[in-house]
Amino acid sequence: MSTPWLGPDEQRAWRGWVEVHARLNARIHRQLQEASGLSLADYAILVELTSERASDASARMFELGERLAWEKSRVSKQVTRMEARGLVVRRHCPDDRRGSYVDLTDAGRAAIEAAAPAHVKLVREMFFDVVPHEDVLRLADLTTAVLARLDATD
Amino acid sequence: MSTPWLGPDEQRAWRGWVEVHARLNARIHRQLQEASGLSLADYAILVELTSERASDASARMFELGERLAWEKSRVSKQVTRMEARGLVVRRHCPDDRRGSYVDLTDAGRAAIEAAAPAHVKLVREMFFDVVPHEDVLRLADLTTAVLARLDATD
Repeated sequence: MSTPWLGPDEQRAWRGWVEVHARLNARIHRQLQEASGLSLADYAILVELTSERASDASARMFELGERLAWEKSRVSKQVTRMEARGLVVRRHCPDDRRGSYVDLTDAGRAAIEAAAPAHVKLVREMFFDVVPHEDVLRLADLTTAVLARLDATD
Repeated sequence: MSTPWLGPDEQRAWRGWVEVHARLNARIHRQLQEASGLSLADYAILVELTSERASDASARMFELGERLAWEKSRVSKQVTRMEARGLVVRRHCPDDRRGSYVDLTDAGRAAIEAAAPAHVKLVREMFFDVVPHEDVLRLADLTTAVLARLDATD
């Protein structure tokens, strides 16, 4: 009944996956900080609030947590920090039991618009420039399959 | 001179990559906590100290930081927390300017040996069971290429 250990190819893929993430995230965070004073966590929230899923550049706190896979307390602390810097505003809805909203401010929109080009450039240079397009398609499919499994077992 | 935005396939791959990582990490962390009281960060340190790269189950602080792509302060805080729980011991070398070591304790080894089977089972169920072996090979190559790019531009 014991689970077989990972095979050599699987180990190589898994260690690569874990290591690339850690190092890419560290690099992206550093670049964001230097170029625009944003952290990777700031950027992730701003991306959510400017995505097409956020109507009127607004999202519920709990939805942000679900999309980013962050615990409630982490979302709350992050939003508090960003609110202090004028990037977002928290809006309470007394009539709505599903909790409060986070709204993007003009300053928040300006911040992500200023940061995005250099961010995309880095992602291209570190990732897409060295990954053949065929592998990009595979990766897209692979992540879709894993997300479906995560959803099915939540 | 502007960088082209990500194309639709690239966006799908990149968002998938970011989202799978966040959700898998959250799931793995939760499972570790429930099953063994370890955090994902504890586990990452224990993996490093039991890997073949760590001779005598010991590693320098700064090497742990490099391998995990963590900042110095994060490594230090994490090691302090783990030391308080008896999983590792920090050892200062007054003659060695390259800083202190972290040694695995017997309790630390017992902790990772107890946690590993369920961890591998989860990684299999969420990842390798839904990813064809051919894609595993591609992923291994892809991560190798990205790591080489990261190294070359560090």
